[in-house]
Amino acid sequence: MLLKKFKNIKMKAEVAILIGSITDLEKINDCLQTLENFNVAYDCRVLSAHRTPDLVKEFVKKAEESGVKVIIAAASGAAHLPGVIASYTILPVIGIPLRSQISLNGLDSILSILQMPSGVPVATVGLDNSKNAALLALQILAINNPSLKQKLLNFKNDMANKVLESQSKIDQLNYYYLTKI
Amino acid sequence: MLLKKFKNIKMKAEVAILIGSITDLEKINDCLQTLENFNVAYDCRVLSAHRTPDLVKEFVKKAEESGVKVIIAAASGAAHLPGVIASYTILPVIGIPLRSQISLNGLDSILSILQMPSGVPVATVGLDNSKNAALLALQILAINNPSLKQKLLNFKNDMANKVLESQSKIDQLNYYYLTKI
Amino acid sequence: MLLKKFKNIKMKAEVAILIGSITDLEKINDCLQTLENFNVAYDCRVLSAHRTPDLVKEFVKKAEESGVKVIIAAASGAAHLPGVIASYTILPVIGIPLRSQISLNGLDSILSILQMPSGVPVATVGLDNSKNAALLALQILAINNPSLKQKLLNFKNDMANKVLESQSKIDQLNYYYLTKI
Amino acid sequence: MLLKKFKNIKMKAEVAILIGSITDLEKINDCLQTLENFNVAYDCRVLSAHRTPDLVKEFVKKAEESGVKVIIAAASGAAHLPGVIASYTILPVIGIPLRSQISLNGLDSILSILQMPSGVPVATVGLDNSKNAALLALQILAINNPSLKQKLLNFKNDMANKVLESQSKIDQLNYYYLTKI
Amino acid sequence: MLLKKFKNIKMKAEVAILIGSITDLEKINDCLQTLENFNVAYDCRVLSAHRTPDLVKEFVKKAEESGVKVIIAAASGAAHLPGVIASYTILPVIGIPLRSQISLNGLDSILSILQMPSGVPVATVGLDNSKNAALLALQILAINNPSLKQKLLNFKNDMANKVLESQSKIDQLNYYYLTKI
Amino acid sequence: MLLKKFKNIKMKAEVAILIGSITDLEKINDCLQTLENFNVAYDCRVLSAHRTPDLVKEFVKKAEESGVKVIIAAASGAAHLPGVIASYTILPVIGIPLRSQISLNGLDSILSILQMPSGVPVATVGLDNSKNAALLALQILAINNPSLKQKLLNFKNDMANKVLESQSKIDQLNYYYLTKI
Amino acid sequence: MLLKKFKNIKMKAEVAILIGSITDLEKINDCLQTLENFNVAYDCRVLSAHRTPDLVKEFVKKAEESGVKVIIAAASGAAHLPGVIASYTILPVIGIPLRSQISLNGLDSILSILQMPSGVPVATVGLDNSKNAALLALQILAINNPSLKQKLLNFKNDMANKVLESQSKIDQLNYYYLTKI
Amino acid sequence: MLLKKFKNIKMKAEVAILIGSITDLEKINDCLQTLENFNVAYDCRVLSAHRTPDLVKEFVKKAEESGVKVIIAAASGAAHLPGVIASYTILPVIGIPLRSQISLNGLDSILSILQMPSGVPVATVGLDNSKNAALLALQILAINNPSLKQKLLNFKNDMANKVLESQSKIDQLNYYYLTKI
Repeated sequence: MLLKKFKNIKMKAEVAILIGSITDLEKINDCLQTLENFNVAYDCRVLSAHRTPDLVKEFVKKAEESGVKVIIAAASGAAHLPGVIASYTILPVIGIPLRSQISLNGLDSILSILQMPSGVPVATVGLDNSKNAALLALQILAINNPSLKQKLLNFKNDMANKVLESQSKIDQLNYYYLTKI
Repeated sequence: MLLKKFKNIKMKAEVAILIGSITDLEKINDCLQTLENFNVAYDCRVLSAHRTPDLVKEFVKKAEESGVKVIIAAASGAAHLPGVIASYTILPVIGIPLRSQISLNGLDSILSILQMPSGVPVATVGLDNSKNAALLALQILAINNPSLKQKLLNFKNDMANKVLESQSKIDQLNYYYLTKI
Repeated sequence: MLLKKFKNIKMKAEVAILIGSITDLEKINDCLQTLENFNVAYDCRVLSAHRTPDLVKEFVKKAEESGVKVIIAAASGAAHLPGVIASYTILPVIGIPLRSQISLNGLDSILSILQMPSGVPVATVGLDNSKNAALLALQILAINNPSLKQKLLNFKNDMANKVLESQSKIDQLNYYYLTKI
Repeated sequence: MLLKKFKNIKMKAEVAILIGSITDLEKINDCLQTLENFNVAYDCRVLSAHRTPDLVKEFVKKAEESGVKVIIAAASGAAHLPGVIASYTILPVIGIPLRSQISLNGLDSILSILQMPSGVPVATVGLDNSKNAALLALQILAINNPSLKQKLLNFKNDMANKVLESQSKIDQLNYYYLTKI
Repeated sequence: MLLKKFKNIKMKAEVAILIGSITDLEKINDCLQTLENFNVAYDCRVLSAHRTPDLVKEFVKKAEESGVKVIIAAASGAAHLPGVIASYTILPVIGIPLRSQISLNGLDSILSILQMPSGVPVATVGLDNSKNAALLALQILAINNPSLKQKLLNFKNDMANKVLESQSKIDQLNYYYLTKI
Repeated sequence: MLLKKFKNIKMKAEVAILIGSITDLEKINDCLQTLENFNVAYDCRVLSAHRTPDLVKEFVKKAEESGVKVIIAAASGAAHLPGVIASYTILPVIGIPLRSQISLNGLDSILSILQMPSGVPVATVGLDNSKNAALLALQILAINNPSLKQKLLNFKNDMANKVLESQSKIDQLNYYYLTKI
Repeated sequence: MLLKKFKNIKMKAEVAILIGSITDLEKINDCLQTLENFNVAYDCRVLSAHRTPDLVKEFVKKAEESGVKVIIAAASGAAHLPGVIASYTILPVIGIPLRSQISLNGLDSILSILQMPSGVPVATVGLDNSKNAALLALQILAINNPSLKQKLLNFKNDMANKVLESQSKIDQLNYYYLTKI
Repeated sequence: MLLKKFKNIKMKAEVAILIGSITDLEKINDCLQTLENFNVAYDCRVLSAHRTPDLVKEFVKKAEESGVKVIIAAASGAAHLPGVIASYTILPVIGIPLRSQISLNGLDSILSILQMPSGVPVATVGLDNSKNAALLALQILAINNPSLKQKLLNFKNDMANKVLESQSKIDQLNYYYLTKI
């Protein structure tokens, strides 16, 4: 089998992201956007556990060597990509189960990623929840990165404030209701 | 973490309603409408178990003090809001599991709300069935409120009559069928 | 159909409890015990939605007249008992889904009780969680009963203390582990 | 509770059909159409197990007296209608689980109808498969009706022929494929 | 394929019962016992849809000729037996989904029997509920058999009385509880 | 029952494909296309396990005689077609579970095909995955066909290259992100 | 990573069998026994997709070279072994989903094996049904092996006869019942 | 509410572990053992999200201050503990779904932990797979701990060797089978 090798990029990415098919790209847009918002470098590739198994291994090894600290993989159906990656590395692997045309409501994607055998964990996040995969990666990186830690605290604070701001919408819409007293 | 405090409303509401996100507001519209139809005051807020955990506790305590008798909470996915509220109060808590973009057909929402541990009940109603949450709250309030009790009896009566009225539509549509005799 | 009438007890029970079969009695033992612990009177009967439909209705009407404030019903499989009761009354009805020989892991019991149509709520608690049904009934009764309210607060407090006491077991078992420093 | 009584029709219908809500009418259209195609009289009513429980009983009793031989009931969610009917009669009751706005993919509808307790059967057909409910009723009636039996044999024959006719469409579409020999 | 033919019994059975494997016999014991209790003749055979497909067809044809009026079939896993029988006959076919070593909690058995295509119904009863299969068959036969009808009414009455009798056990066990008044 | 016989085609097809209904034709388009791409002759028919059981048997026997080596069958709901075929032959039978209007999310289709009893296997592929059914058939045929084997190797290689090519789209879209170094 | 290489056996096995853990050995006993009964050579190994990924690839390549024609793999939970094998070969791969301590009733095992992406099929058999995996392999091998074909026909015939023989047990047990006529 | 405060231990633990009930202790034994094997300090506590909500918050804050880097939480049913912890911290939180007396086969535990809303991730591992929770924590800690990294590589290596050693058991048991050549 002859395959075109991917470009040998000088990676300084801290996070590597794999999807099995280009069609999954929009599903992980929130993940990419979140990492960019936190100014954390990532390297995103399309490599399939079932169609390019050798390149998945090769990529994982290169990622390890180049200093990647966390690997994120998204897949659907019999979603083997995160588990296959985890078989090759001791870096933390985060799995994103995706709903797709071929999946059974996403339940197959969830169970195929989550139910890994003893010894080879995959940190699974919620269905289609690629943003949480990014945040989990950031939380892991922040353990030894005080500036990133502060950004995450700010993010958490902003998130709370957004919830409160939406309360004002309810007030304006006159949605809550008080009997005259 | 600094958060904007919600307005310190002089509550005489008997029912407090929490949703975790403004996007859930339309999902509970029937709940709000039903309470209004029965002229029962409520206070509806957007507070998230995961994004504003401290404010949920603060709100529950204020609700208790201000005389709220029943708390309704709607949530989806890993729906923790009703259970978190129940951890802070001995008021009856009614949980509404919601189907949403992030939920697995609503089965996650149902099980995350229903399957509470021994000692901390949540009164769970059907998926997306916010009207029943309102009616359950009204039934609880009616135990010591004869006028509300009468309204509920009238409502039950009206409901039965509406079923019967729809029978006439079948008759008009000539849908039922008798062989000539 | 001639059926032996049940004894016309002078009920002052505040809670009525129905099970569809005597074999379900041990499943609701925690419910009965909890009500007794809080000194709240209940009346527990075996009446089946499918085998004694008329008596279910008759019992619900009598319960209403005699001052019962909350009705609890436990059932399994195509668990119709709580819903049938709710069709006859505007009292709050609490449903306990049971796992049993005939049930499909209890999922049928849960869905048959929970997914009631709009207009006729059943307050559903977790699978086999009859203790929570009792506590929910007590929370409802406590709205207008300060002494019961205090007992529930004490119960909640005790529950927390029991959790903490179990921590000491971990300590004694030498389960937690600190590297020497 | 005062309810408008349904018209006291002189029924010679052999099949009674109940739906709990007028919105389910289109869901059972195939059922009605099939009975009409076989020239079997039916009486179709809107009566809810939960909103008009007394009228369901009353209707079942009238249906029995007027000579109805089979009862069909369609429902969704916590679908109690077929089971409630079965609690009142020893006529064969056919249940049609419906998918609807309030149902959890129809799984709740299926289990709430199918998993009846020992002693009170409901003959359940497939999800939304109201045509099969009609055919099952016809098969039951045909046991003592040779002319109806013949019609069912013809129907079965036609059904097979329709399958074969569709084969010609494949041929025309040039869909099957033979390597040149 | 040469197979030993089954004995050419002079059948006057009204109900034919098929199981796919001798190991399913105890699972349908309640079915057989119930038919015997009602003094209705049946013919019970072991014939597999997948291992003896031709004999299933042959048996169905013989059953039809000999005057069988209802066919009951029990199966588990990819439970095809009831559906295969239904493909050969217009007699009512009752399917009993069984839980077994090879089944996925019985959910496969239920769906494989219940979800028949339009045109070929199977009257499905609850999981492992062979008694209900017998009762459904008896209800069908009773349509034209007043004596059987009376027996079914008596059975329904007895069933209700047994429920009531179990109430006395609760009374004796001193299970219900009244605060002193 | 009189049925129009299908044309007695001189088959040299190596793969026979059955669908139960013409509406399933578009669902298996990928299967047909894939076989054509590999220049493998197939014979595709519409024959229903439940509506034309005798013709299914007849077709299987003819297919065997004419030299068919693998049979593919697609079905949904209580999907019996692959299993019924397997009951008549020792040729490998490949089953494609389909999602359809009548199916419960396809879970019924999967379990009805997959969970065959011991002794009568069906090689099941993923939900709606008719392309994989074709590829599995080709893999089976290739065991003794070196030229077909080579084509499959080429296909596998092309598949890998397509994955890699899609990587360039990510590069062009500027989707991956490297902090300046 | 240094691993002890497995012995370089001179394989003439036609079937290779992989299990991920020695604890799965008894689960596939029927598979091994069936192949032995048909006198077909196999090579059974313990190799884990997640713990020995490189050796799985190495074994698949050796198996291909040594003339193995079909590969069987059994796994549970996030069952990746069959899919990983399929990623390395165009030989037919048969997957056996196993129920185990770590699996969620086997549903995870089923979906992780069955729901493979387009292009990389796994021929999945029923849960824990290792015998059917062996039979499917034999059916595939029999396509070009008339003697094996005959053995499979005999097996099918024996299977049918065993069903019939079990009928005699019913007869002896006096289980079927005929009213005196 | 007055609660006994837990001892103010001078923590140098890198991992904090919470279980909601002492009965879950044996379920996480593998987790504790694995951390000990890697000589990583942990602090294991019993604190319930629903029974001691304030102490959970207090503990999380103390854990953060004392230098804990990863928090592991195990829970079952409506398993809120991991999510509640995640609401209070930006440390990585690992959730272990447990099967228990009150859970619905563990599916509720899985979904209640996994399906967290956007913004608040929980790294979920497989059902009852507490060992993988420990390993995931170790992988996270190893990012900045070369010595721990090496231990994990050794562990991975040992794991592979154990798989290979089990192969010898198969050889000894004479389980694999080669036709004489």
